[in-house]
Amino acid sequence: MTPQTPDPLSAAFAALADPTRRAILARLSQGETSVTELSKPFAMSGPAVTKHLKVLERAGLISRSQHAQWRPARLEPARLKAVAQWLDDYRLLWEQSFDRLDDYLAELQKKEV
Amino acid sequence: MTPQTPDPLSAAFAALADPTRRAILARLSQGETSVTELSKPFAMSGPAVTKHLKVLERAGLISRSQHAQWRPARLEPARLKAVAQWLDDYRLLWEQSFDRLDDYLAELQKKEV
Repeated sequence: MTPQTPDPLSAAFAALADPTRRAILARLSQGETSVTELSKPFAMSGPAVTKHLKVLERAGLISRSQHAQWRPARLEPARLKAVAQWLDDYRLLWEQSFDRLDDYLAELQKKEV
Repeated sequence: MTPQTPDPLSAAFAALADPTRRAILARLSQGETSVTELSKPFAMSGPAVTKHLKVLERAGLISRSQHAQWRPARLEPARLKAVAQWLDDYRLLWEQSFDRLDDYLAELQKKEV
């Protein structure tokens, strides 16, 4: 496992570890968009947006059209689904820990009565 | 937003962007464990495991006991829950995209009949 070729899940997590890239994904969840449109709300230059899009594209989180000259970016939900599936293995753990908190709070209330 | 102080969600995503750290979390999902125990299945040195644990701890994904001398590491599911909640905003998108695939496949089958 070299740093040059991370596994798909690691690449997705690394790409998501940036608030601007997550905001770009949120914008793309509303529909495909050009670099020009994307750069407006972020007050970023076109090249800065393009750099973030390249990270997201390499991670499989977005794709960019090769046909239109403005190369719209679109969200690829399948990779986000893979990330969510990895997290699902832990769902029971946080549900259990909140159950334990509920039990603890119920016990405290009993004592107060 | 400086690189020194990433927001909690970015720190969690960055910590998860490593297969060894994800494997450590998988091990800790079975119960709290010492560095010595953790280093065995990974064929890693204690200091290498400790370095990964520090990244996970700074990201709020694990905690380490201050009491016992062997300082067992334990999973903190709440931060994983926060990551899953971020992803939940996109769940509809990947469910819709699989619905569209289902529609497409159903249409193909109709044509074949």
